[in-house]
Amino acid sequence: MKKHNFYAGPSILPNQVIEATKEALTNFKGTGISLASISHRSKQFDEVVTEAQQNFKDLLNLPEGYHVLFVGGGASTQFAMVPFNLMNKKAAYLNTGTWSSKAVKEAKLFGEVQEFKNENFFSIPKGWEKKVDSDVDYVHITTNNTIYGTELHQDFDFNMPLVADMSSDILSREIDASKYAVIYGGAQKNLAPSGVTFVIVREDILGKVERQIPTMLNYKTHIDKGSMFNTPPVIPIFALNETLKWVKENGGIKGMMKLADERANLLYGEIDRNKLFKGTVAKEDRSKMNICFVMNEEYASLEQKFAEYAAAQGMLGIKGHRSVGGFRASTYNALPVESVKALVACMQEFEKENA
Amino acid sequence: MKKHNFYAGPSILPNQVIEATKEALTNFKGTGISLASISHRSKQFDEVVTEAQQNFKDLLNLPEGYHVLFVGGGASTQFAMVPFNLMNKKAAYLNTGTWSSKAVKEAKLFGEVQEFKNENFFSIPKGWEKKVDSDVDYVHITTNNTIYGTELHQDFDFNMPLVADMSSDILSREIDASKYAVIYGGAQKNLAPSGVTFVIVREDILGKVERQIPTMLNYKTHIDKGSMFNTPPVIPIFALNETLKWVKENGGIKGMMKLADERANLLYGEIDRNKLFKGTVAKEDRSKMNICFVMNEEYASLEQKFAEYAAAQGMLGIKGHRSVGGFRASTYNALPVESVKALVACMQEFEKENA
Repeated sequence: MKKHNFYAGPSILPNQVIEATKEALTNFKGTGISLASISHRSKQFDEVVTEAQQNFKDLLNLPEGYHVLFVGGGASTQFAMVPFNLMNKKAAYLNTGTWSSKAVKEAKLFGEVQEFKNENFFSIPKGWEKKVDSDVDYVHITTNNTIYGTELHQDFDFNMPLVADMSSDILSREIDASKYAVIYGGAQKNLAPSGVTFVIVREDILGKVERQIPTMLNYKTHIDKGSMFNTPPVIPIFALNETLKWVKENGGIKGMMKLADERANLLYGEIDRNKLFKGTVAKEDRSKMNICFVMNEEYASLEQKFAEYAAAQGMLGIKGHRSVGGFRASTYNALPVESVKALVACMQEFEKENA
Repeated sequence: MKKHNFYAGPSILPNQVIEATKEALTNFKGTGISLASISHRSKQFDEVVTEAQQNFKDLLNLPEGYHVLFVGGGASTQFAMVPFNLMNKKAAYLNTGTWSSKAVKEAKLFGEVQEFKNENFFSIPKGWEKKVDSDVDYVHITTNNTIYGTELHQDFDFNMPLVADMSSDILSREIDASKYAVIYGGAQKNLAPSGVTFVIVREDILGKVERQIPTMLNYKTHIDKGSMFNTPPVIPIFALNETLKWVKENGGIKGMMKLADERANLLYGEIDRNKLFKGTVAKEDRSKMNICFVMNEEYASLEQKFAEYAAAQGMLGIKGHRSVGGFRASTYNALPVESVKALVACMQEFEKENA
């Protein structure tokens, strides 16, 4: 049976990325040895890192002065690295979900946090950007909220550095990268197998805090060594570069946006139409990457039955996050539109049989 | 031409590990999807983590109270995490090379360091263990020095916690694990592709410092969540577990020691016999994992010629580290004895043609 991969991350990657990674595990760039077993300082691997950095710059149209870093530790480590490197006294955080709550928690270890947050995470605060105190060292946002399924659909203008966790919507929508001072994320949603974190940083914002920063937590360390200060996660970086090539071949971010719109329109359309289901978040804040829905009240008892029905039809990973329940279909860049159509068909059949 | 992989890390892994990883990239444990694209919280991946932890415990014969963690960031991040978690005021460091120097540098950000160090790194201090101050919070050693090619061939007894960076000789020699409070290392030498760091920690040593520790840098975080607090580096952990299984199938650490002795005896024997070459470190401190040698003075001009001669015969990665020069053959667990024999033959032929 065909499987449809809706996992929230690690998640689906393009077939050609998987195939290229397997080939490299046997014979990396004609070296006769495995990508897993070659020095990260070899000319061949150095080319991969340089190419991946350039591909990122091309795709995001990054202006001069930005560096692209590949490090370990996940976005969770960035939650601490951002204040370590940028906070003197105070920062503003838009708290829109589980991940930004964790970012806030870490920031509070380093200073004061001006927090913007709705009563719950099923919608995103509006107008908050006008209330940011003028004395904050930076502003932090999480552009997409994997667990609750909300997403920011705009960039913001600030006089202070803007930092964004884009773990789950990087390269899926056009942004004006010049408005951001730091963009970071775990790669295991739209980019690569887990194990590598991308950090895009505008160098002029660094060097303004007085604390001593441990070497590996200092962005400057990685900038100075071209992201090769220590042994980087070689296989995830190789795969990430293959994904960036795939994005370029498929119309760049514009191409990805078109596919994201198609997938989201199909699935939200069905959620809104189908008598059994309803969406969980404010319509204007709906994520195009993580589409959350629950059973309508009168059909609440059918939840487990639908979960089993969908699983039997090859739908993988549509269970909602353990903290919110219901269903979540993650529809990242590499997810074929056909998989969304299959899920929609599955919802329609289930409606026919049960409504 | 057959390639012989003497890279210092990332480095050679058993063929069966590479093959199993490739297979999992296509169809992970019969799920029909790739290891790269399945949730780290899936039952199937959870089993991998649990199995890898148990295999580590079995192989090192770890007593109760120890936890096995798999994190990102490399040993370089541990250089900061160790003092973050363990240092109140002071620690003792045996400084035996480039990596322990980096560990010392990080520790000094957190407190006072009692440092033991020879004039250069071609030998290891003797008797230092009797001079450790009684008021240090812990003692830190680096058991093998990848760059200079020295290795500690004994365990030590201390009243305070003993912390060891075993990045480059883990599972290659028998140790009494109960004498160590923390054993950590980058996996990319004896265990796995780069991207995962193993940390073995005895829980009772934690919770004794007063500073606030960022969540991801706190060992307790990872212990409490069974090393799954955030998305771990899935592919490197899978491969690591395959290597642990391979070690078990090949006689465990005893089996690895026998092979390490055989490789080291062959190569050091040739270095000592051959008129053209000489070893660089004190004989009693010679590493069995990284075998360093240079041309004898009267043949110094032949260095480049030998480098090219060896490369033409398929010897990969035998150039010494850029900071010391000469040659270095890394002879990790997965390196076939045949590769060492091929290098020895190459040295003998070169001697015949040039001595």
